[in-house]
Amino acid sequence: MSENRIATVRPIAEEAATGKVAEIFADIKKTKGIDFVPNLWRVLAINPVQLEAVWTALKSLMHPEAVGRTSPLDAATRETIALVVSATNGCAYCVNSHTAALRKLGTSNDALGEILAIAGLFNMTNALAEGYQVEPDLLPPLD
Amino acid sequence: MSENRIATVRPIAEEAATGKVAEIFADIKKTKGIDFVPNLWRVLAINPVQLEAVWTALKSLMHPEAVGRTSPLDAATRETIALVVSATNGCAYCVNSHTAALRKLGTSNDALGEILAIAGLFNMTNALAEGYQVEPDLLPPLD
Amino acid sequence: MSENRIATVRPIAEEAATGKVAEIFADIKKTKGIDFVPNLWRVLAINPVQLEAVWTALKSLMHPEAVGRTSPLDAATRETIALVVSATNGCAYCVNSHTAALRKLGTSNDALGEILAIAGLFNMTNALAEGYQVEPDLLPPLD
Amino acid sequence: MSENRIATVRPIAEEAATGKVAEIFADIKKTKGIDFVPNLWRVLAINPVQLEAVWTALKSLMHPEAVGRTSPLDAATRETIALVVSATNGCAYCVNSHTAALRKLGTSNDALGEILAIAGLFNMTNALAEGYQVEPDLLPPLD
Amino acid sequence: MSENRIATVRPIAEEAATGKVAEIFADIKKTKGIDFVPNLWRVLAINPVQLEAVWTALKSLMHPEAVGRTSPLDAATRETIALVVSATNGCAYCVNSHTAALRKLGTSNDALGEILAIAGLFNMTNALAEGYQVEPDLLPPLD
Amino acid sequence: MSENRIATVRPIAEEAATGKVAEIFADIKKTKGIDFVPNLWRVLAINPVQLEAVWTALKSLMHPEAVGRTSPLDAATRETIALVVSATNGCAYCVNSHTAALRKLGTSNDALGEILAIAGLFNMTNALAEGYQVEPDLLPPLD
Repeated sequence: MSENRIATVRPIAEEAATGKVAEIFADIKKTKGIDFVPNLWRVLAINPVQLEAVWTALKSLMHPEAVGRTSPLDAATRETIALVVSATNGCAYCVNSHTAALRKLGTSNDALGEILAIAGLFNMTNALAEGYQVEPDLLPPLD
Repeated sequence: MSENRIATVRPIAEEAATGKVAEIFADIKKTKGIDFVPNLWRVLAINPVQLEAVWTALKSLMHPEAVGRTSPLDAATRETIALVVSATNGCAYCVNSHTAALRKLGTSNDALGEILAIAGLFNMTNALAEGYQVEPDLLPPLD
Repeated sequence: MSENRIATVRPIAEEAATGKVAEIFADIKKTKGIDFVPNLWRVLAINPVQLEAVWTALKSLMHPEAVGRTSPLDAATRETIALVVSATNGCAYCVNSHTAALRKLGTSNDALGEILAIAGLFNMTNALAEGYQVEPDLLPPLD
Repeated sequence: MSENRIATVRPIAEEAATGKVAEIFADIKKTKGIDFVPNLWRVLAINPVQLEAVWTALKSLMHPEAVGRTSPLDAATRETIALVVSATNGCAYCVNSHTAALRKLGTSNDALGEILAIAGLFNMTNALAEGYQVEPDLLPPLD
Repeated sequence: MSENRIATVRPIAEEAATGKVAEIFADIKKTKGIDFVPNLWRVLAINPVQLEAVWTALKSLMHPEAVGRTSPLDAATRETIALVVSATNGCAYCVNSHTAALRKLGTSNDALGEILAIAGLFNMTNALAEGYQVEPDLLPPLD
Repeated sequence: MSENRIATVRPIAEEAATGKVAEIFADIKKTKGIDFVPNLWRVLAINPVQLEAVWTALKSLMHPEAVGRTSPLDAATRETIALVVSATNGCAYCVNSHTAALRKLGTSNDALGEILAIAGLFNMTNALAEGYQVEPDLLPPLD
């Protein structure tokens, strides 16, 4: 579950982080309940504005309890969406990371297989609908 | 919820369908519990082998009860995956169709907003992880 | 086979073209054996360097006879590649244009259905291979 | 022709396969005339429903003779479509696999270069047509 | 510069907005110096958490002066990035919106043509590099 | 800044190049001011028509001074577009190559972070605009 690539920038080491970056690193570990800062965040930290913008959005949407709100979606559905986007875009880091998150939530091989099979299926029908420029069906009005 | 496009092939009208195509059209309506054949299927019918290949896969994965199996995912999660793939790929027909399917299953504006916000979020982090070629984190072994 | 969109720039009318642009417009019509300049080229003409760069590449690869060479691929295979890329990317203009080109070359509904079904199929397997980060099989050496 | 990645799930070994999975593994080897089960299929086998859905579609479209039908496309055109989709999506496993398949069918470096050059070309024109939102040309009616 | 599509949800009218949504609508108009709320924001408002997450990220990155910071990039470069992403993804709304923003900043047809020609060019080389799985060149160390 | 992949074709060694290929290799080194031929060009050289088509387009758009013209965009903006396309498409070779080019032009970590953060941001909003099929705003006429 690793790939032999080296990031184009030197990730910020946890012990080298100061100020706003150190604060966000601590918040990431606390919010996610993990004892290391994943590589993505250490790379984003080369530009603290970027780190804060991405973390603020992700914390609000993926850790609703940490910002005092209740999400209409449960944690497994949220991670399913993350994996499906990552499979569709072919993002190696992201596929590894969100598969690991689903595992932590108890997702079985059977469920993982179903998630990805359905993601694959709609990548097929998307190409077909676009490849023929199919017209949307007449749908009922919004209200 | 419509777009002014015309498919590149003439869709097969329900009343013009015969043989294998007519059978599949009937199965689509019965399996989905609808009284018309959506445009995508009428277009795919220009090549019956294609129609059967796509319908067989979709029926098995999206209508498990119709093939006598139980899916580890519920219907709303399956349609959520479909919408998320379609939003990521930017497929107009598919976004309309799967939003309508989620509505039929009772998805509120609030839940729809959360689904798409999370899909958007991971399209952002995917571009970041790829844009820096971030190395996957060391993960625990598979077993 | 049209979509209600308006380009973000005003296309250059044939009769308004002068100099290099007029020359390329004439070459497009002659090379393609058509009596009008398709919209894509009229839009690209807002920047003549761009028009020339794209036309030079396309003429060389898609109209080999016009540059005095023989291609290892026939015209139908070349247009098939064009349509498959366009379906995968979901490009409305391009799907319409390359479907029309295939029709002109005599492609039947049956063959068109097979082309797009296979394009759809591999959009499915691509998402699966990426969604699991499947390792390439051991392949024989290059020579 | 390999990449240092490890799939996110443990592929099913051929000798560990039983029941439906063993049957499909045998069919894959026989249909493709190879003496091993490629990694993609061993990974898909974590969920037998998924394995069957994907294999059924692929067998029907890519091995028409095995299901007793004649395809309007020859084997090289079918693999060309597969490679072009995989190059457009950037799928490492798939590019390796379909390049190998084309080699087996006798595709020369020259033809491979032409296939990918044309795939590259239309990825360029797709971005241009979308980047300007070019309107489709007026096309002749369908019949 | 419009397309005949209807959003899948009813956009929130400005005069119907209350609380957090009304505050953000006002901030969007003030920050962007416009007198209406663009459709994207009115649609995102169906879920206020989503509206706030996207606006917070966009305000910070695209309107640095409004959050009291200086960006290393000027406004035209920022909008160029936005247009290039949108052309690559084929997003109709976004292409229209970011072309209009570039126009407001004084971008000529000539510059627009150069931006999109280069975006097209690298969509071509990306497909080629992926289509051959080209190995990265040996690069100098990071420091 | 490397990835463990092996191209699907054997790159042409500089010392093995003859005729048109040798000429283009020399022009690439001279135009780019480097003392080696990057892997992409050595791979494209398996088909000289392809090599020439891609190099002609790239030289004209990315090295305007070498073809005696002035571009409306500066070199850093051109490479920024290249990186943003590559991040959006997830092209490993291209991300490495264009990050190195930006470094050579003096781009700081701070600016790189801002470029990719904005690229990420619009990948998010693109998925949202497509995921809701948002209608373009009414825009002022073209003239």
